[in-house]
Amino acid sequence: MTNRLAEMTTDQAKDAVRTAPLAIIPVGAQEQHGGGMAMSTDTVRAVGVAELVAERLAGRAVVAPPLTYGVSPHHMAFAGTMTLSPATFAAVVRELVDSLYQHGWRQFLVVTGHGGNNAALSVLAQEYVHSDLTFAWTPLTEIVSDLITDVSEVHGHAGEAETSQMLYLAPELVHSEQLEPGALTFDELSTPARLSRTKQGPRMSVGFDVYHKRGVLGDPRRATAEQGRLLVETAADRIAAFADELLSA
Amino acid sequence: MTNRLAEMTTDQAKDAVRTAPLAIIPVGAQEQHGGGMAMSTDTVRAVGVAELVAERLAGRAVVAPPLTYGVSPHHMAFAGTMTLSPATFAAVVRELVDSLYQHGWRQFLVVTGHGGNNAALSVLAQEYVHSDLTFAWTPLTEIVSDLITDVSEVHGHAGEAETSQMLYLAPELVHSEQLEPGALTFDELSTPARLSRTKQGPRMSVGFDVYHKRGVLGDPRRATAEQGRLLVETAADRIAAFADELLSA
Amino acid sequence: MTNRLAEMTTDQAKDAVRTAPLAIIPVGAQEQHGGGMAMSTDTVRAVGVAELVAERLAGRAVVAPPLTYGVSPHHMAFAGTMTLSPATFAAVVRELVDSLYQHGWRQFLVVTGHGGNNAALSVLAQEYVHSDLTFAWTPLTEIVSDLITDVSEVHGHAGEAETSQMLYLAPELVHSEQLEPGALTFDELSTPARLSRTKQGPRMSVGFDVYHKRGVLGDPRRATAEQGRLLVETAADRIAAFADELLSA
Amino acid sequence: MTNRLAEMTTDQAKDAVRTAPLAIIPVGAQEQHGGGMAMSTDTVRAVGVAELVAERLAGRAVVAPPLTYGVSPHHMAFAGTMTLSPATFAAVVRELVDSLYQHGWRQFLVVTGHGGNNAALSVLAQEYVHSDLTFAWTPLTEIVSDLITDVSEVHGHAGEAETSQMLYLAPELVHSEQLEPGALTFDELSTPARLSRTKQGPRMSVGFDVYHKRGVLGDPRRATAEQGRLLVETAADRIAAFADELLSA
Amino acid sequence: MTNRLAEMTTDQAKDAVRTAPLAIIPVGAQEQHGGGMAMSTDTVRAVGVAELVAERLAGRAVVAPPLTYGVSPHHMAFAGTMTLSPATFAAVVRELVDSLYQHGWRQFLVVTGHGGNNAALSVLAQEYVHSDLTFAWTPLTEIVSDLITDVSEVHGHAGEAETSQMLYLAPELVHSEQLEPGALTFDELSTPARLSRTKQGPRMSVGFDVYHKRGVLGDPRRATAEQGRLLVETAADRIAAFADELLSA
Amino acid sequence: MTNRLAEMTTDQAKDAVRTAPLAIIPVGAQEQHGGGMAMSTDTVRAVGVAELVAERLAGRAVVAPPLTYGVSPHHMAFAGTMTLSPATFAAVVRELVDSLYQHGWRQFLVVTGHGGNNAALSVLAQEYVHSDLTFAWTPLTEIVSDLITDVSEVHGHAGEAETSQMLYLAPELVHSEQLEPGALTFDELSTPARLSRTKQGPRMSVGFDVYHKRGVLGDPRRATAEQGRLLVETAADRIAAFADELLSA
Repeated sequence: MTNRLAEMTTDQAKDAVRTAPLAIIPVGAQEQHGGGMAMSTDTVRAVGVAELVAERLAGRAVVAPPLTYGVSPHHMAFAGTMTLSPATFAAVVRELVDSLYQHGWRQFLVVTGHGGNNAALSVLAQEYVHSDLTFAWTPLTEIVSDLITDVSEVHGHAGEAETSQMLYLAPELVHSEQLEPGALTFDELSTPARLSRTKQGPRMSVGFDVYHKRGVLGDPRRATAEQGRLLVETAADRIAAFADELLSA
Repeated sequence: MTNRLAEMTTDQAKDAVRTAPLAIIPVGAQEQHGGGMAMSTDTVRAVGVAELVAERLAGRAVVAPPLTYGVSPHHMAFAGTMTLSPATFAAVVRELVDSLYQHGWRQFLVVTGHGGNNAALSVLAQEYVHSDLTFAWTPLTEIVSDLITDVSEVHGHAGEAETSQMLYLAPELVHSEQLEPGALTFDELSTPARLSRTKQGPRMSVGFDVYHKRGVLGDPRRATAEQGRLLVETAADRIAAFADELLSA
Repeated sequence: MTNRLAEMTTDQAKDAVRTAPLAIIPVGAQEQHGGGMAMSTDTVRAVGVAELVAERLAGRAVVAPPLTYGVSPHHMAFAGTMTLSPATFAAVVRELVDSLYQHGWRQFLVVTGHGGNNAALSVLAQEYVHSDLTFAWTPLTEIVSDLITDVSEVHGHAGEAETSQMLYLAPELVHSEQLEPGALTFDELSTPARLSRTKQGPRMSVGFDVYHKRGVLGDPRRATAEQGRLLVETAADRIAAFADELLSA
Repeated sequence: MTNRLAEMTTDQAKDAVRTAPLAIIPVGAQEQHGGGMAMSTDTVRAVGVAELVAERLAGRAVVAPPLTYGVSPHHMAFAGTMTLSPATFAAVVRELVDSLYQHGWRQFLVVTGHGGNNAALSVLAQEYVHSDLTFAWTPLTEIVSDLITDVSEVHGHAGEAETSQMLYLAPELVHSEQLEPGALTFDELSTPARLSRTKQGPRMSVGFDVYHKRGVLGDPRRATAEQGRLLVETAADRIAAFADELLSA
Repeated sequence: MTNRLAEMTTDQAKDAVRTAPLAIIPVGAQEQHGGGMAMSTDTVRAVGVAELVAERLAGRAVVAPPLTYGVSPHHMAFAGTMTLSPATFAAVVRELVDSLYQHGWRQFLVVTGHGGNNAALSVLAQEYVHSDLTFAWTPLTEIVSDLITDVSEVHGHAGEAETSQMLYLAPELVHSEQLEPGALTFDELSTPARLSRTKQGPRMSVGFDVYHKRGVLGDPRRATAEQGRLLVETAADRIAAFADELLSA
Repeated sequence: MTNRLAEMTTDQAKDAVRTAPLAIIPVGAQEQHGGGMAMSTDTVRAVGVAELVAERLAGRAVVAPPLTYGVSPHHMAFAGTMTLSPATFAAVVRELVDSLYQHGWRQFLVVTGHGGNNAALSVLAQEYVHSDLTFAWTPLTEIVSDLITDVSEVHGHAGEAETSQMLYLAPELVHSEQLEPGALTFDELSTPARLSRTKQGPRMSVGFDVYHKRGVLGDPRRATAEQGRLLVETAADRIAAFADELLSA
């Protein structure tokens, strides 16, 4: 039986409230990912990992339809990017959680394929501190950052790790011949770009056009499906382990 | 080449601003559709028709990622339904339009597979009256209502016409053996349910559990893929004709 | 005894909660109605019909003070039009309903003399689906459209039917010698204007200056008080019949 | 010619932008005024004075339709009172001002018949400090308080001065035989009620049921139409003098 | 033991809920006070008086951390002024009250050193009318206006009385040699400035640059610490007397 | 000359716009810090570091008045904690930035002494990505985490590092004899508490009462002023270095 709420009938959902107490909500983005990758990359990855997590939980989780848009103002210099304001994004997730809460769900896990959604999700998590539901959320690449090696000095958005994940999950959305390197070294960054990557210091957000004219961090040409499999499957493992503890608590 | 913004790269989107001046945004719902149909029915139909319209426009339109959630408070008595408030739903669509506007698009068509979204879309349309963009939106079944014949006295949500569309567009999401009739005649409706269907008189909204314990209007067992094809393809024809005029204006 | 809440003392209102369980709220607009009719036309018609309905209900309904402003962005090209945003308009109606709810009323009927208020009222109606109050609302001309005959091909705002209603209800606000025809045929409409009147197709809102430089649809010179009486009294009949059923349920 | 925007045609309004640069907006309330006075008292007085002011300005001012609802939470213990929240009330006035601003008006005077609206109007006035429009507002009784003599120690809402104004402006809305005294002396007030009337000290708002079970301050039986005429006509004089200076500045 | 919540530990606060049932919240402003006084003047005075009041109440009140920003749009023409919108200011105070309410406090007194905060506080006071908490608020100079004598015809912001208070409370923030007179007589005011000071008539808010190029009303050179002591200590007396009655009620 | 905007006159601020182009805004919290530390701890630390940074920048920065309240829902189980919602907190900071922007400032640095403010500040930072101002913000302890050694396995809020900072900056607000250990090891944490500290996995927020009945993480008895000096002065160094680069860019 499917664990996708989208494909269930209402009768199946009624059963799932009891049998599958964890509701996973994948949230992505519609935003530029360089010259060689589809703009749905973050949604695709969020859905992909959410389903792998649900699979590992063997019937104890349902996966809600993906929110295909995220908070992407920093990519608006690139055509085709579409962004929600943080307040609207948060309102959507809040109302999705509230909907499932009304049907009886009490444990929620938002899987975000897009780092731009993190701040709004953190704010939401604060709102739920004294509620009677559990609200967890997870980024993807960050939780497997220890496995990312042999990459350019500057790497990140649409770079090695993300492209690898797409080569594993949805190779048809990667145009390998059009992959091209973005910012690779700290030295080539402008001051604001460099400052925004400070490790032990203040934080600052810059548009991705400030990093590089193509909005890419790192060298996606070095991506491999094999590395993608490692990152994706390990992320799913770690999230599933977390969820398993949560469900057993 | 694809007309789906989700699958495009940013470079393709940049070209599309010029070549495909109409942006189509499909919006659906996650809500009960009786015992035999998937809860994503409205999203599936919105996307299906949106793509048929784009096809007919032969490169002059792009299709944005679907908004997979809509305004469904009237179905919340049924497990698995998820709803956005009208204000949040409108905020999302407004921000999606604004995003594409920033890239240069000026003509917008929202295709909604769910009647519960109509009111919020009507409000939005009022906001755009004095803007420099064109905002149109369309329901599906309503624009081919003249083709719906031989149905039960009461029909509508998850009934003959909607199920037919799904049998044509996504038969794998219809469990034919589980289809069951809902409210069929005015006589069996409670007073509030009947009043809410008044033709020449005041309007009133009731929960779909007030219509029928299964939330279905009509008899989905009478649905056929052939009828679905007629409704879907004609809707696409009519919307495309409208868009064509708009693009030529 | 009066059924107008405005004219009652609080003691009379206290009695009315028991004896007159239906609260009717008339909402209108302050907007252009061509060169020959007062801008309060929609408020005057809403109040007029609301009072006729209350009369027919013989003491079972109260009429709240009118909201003299509505949602009229599409008339802002014409001097003297004043508009509320849909959100503010809805907030007002919501708070009026809430006020009367606190005193014990549970059945509400908003009578709108202005079609621009319909979308916001539809949204409001969705909010009340799962409340313990009944919220109905009604347009005027639409519910007697079957009685409108012998009019120009294009007709509507400030045209034959509306002017007739004013000649019956408040002839002193009609300057007959200044009535002048507006848009009369589809052929004379611009493409956007024509598209916005599509029957089986997408919806679009345009400013009334796009329809005609005088913002009028139809030929108000053909209006008669007799026709107005038919429309107004029949509308009151139909609304009262609806309310009667509601009160008996 | 009328100075009421409600009764004007749009053509007349177009002329008025030039000839009548001051827009007066009367705002009232729907709230209890004791056992002998209509709940529309504040709206009636606002409209009455607004029109007297416009008359004195001899064609240099227009009067907008009245906002018949105000901020009345402190009267909600009494049946029939209807209240807007301060935020919604302010939003309405803001949008009315903005509407007329779009047509060319730059000078605004809100006449409020209800003290409960003062705080929200003060807030609005702050918003307009650095705009290019002039926003003034005026209470009624407060600006002629020097003329109120021979009244009970405690007096105010629905008391001598207000009832006198109604006997002058709309005697048909006063039921003299039902007028009854409310709180008359400080000694009979509860501590919170007394504290809320502190002159040189902190401010506090209490419900009018805390002042007196009938919600009345003072003795309306002592009201006279003659005193009402003095208060109303002097208020109109003073406001008109103010407006005259404003228009000449 | 301190009565400042800022300096307490949570354990001390837990005791204070019982022993000190009045919570005093000082709110000020960051805004120009002429050439000779610090921009924190209103915060300093609010805190100063709040602490004197708490002292007089001998352990029955706590003082919350000051809100160091207020509603100051009318001073924005002067560098260094920082302003909150009335809505945000009110939201902050509302949330502070709500926080303490959750810990058990039920009596609240906001002490504002800045008149620009009055309108928003009045609105807030209306919201609390039917709550189960007591919300009082107090300006400073206004409640001792009977003691202000021998001042220029026009006086007020950064003038004699306010500067005197600062000379008493925080002389180190007054640069006496830089004090300079502002607007002193009605005759020298522009029409809008004069109208905004009308006693028996409409109200209007103007920027303080409209009053005088230095934004000062009155002659601060005539201020004395002795006069400041009289104003400050009397204000504290009066507020404490009020609070004492409240606590005994 | 002072670099505190609170203590400046408006004339001094006018000069500072030119000479001190960086505006530093310290934001703190009013929240429990265990049995031995004042609830203003986060505000004290934010102000302390902000001033040290300004000192290092030698006249090129001003320090705005502190926002003494932050986002602290997770501490509301402890008496005396006061919290703003994330939306209100963000609105305040946004309006403070906007105020200074109007006077000419273009570079902003928010120093937060409280981690609960981070999420709202991250959201704000996204809003400013495409503005013409620079918005940076910085936590304190996180940017010197490499210097925190010899601490308990679980450490953080009101633990070794934070108490050390207070012993250095404001020893009078630390009651050493009342310091007591909180949660020290992962083993003693409940499952939700432990999950919320997951390094490579999903994020979750829990109330601090879930960590430990005293709301403390770590052992504040091991704090020293010397360690505090190292952390505080190094944080100031790093922030100043960042600001210096920013100012030179």
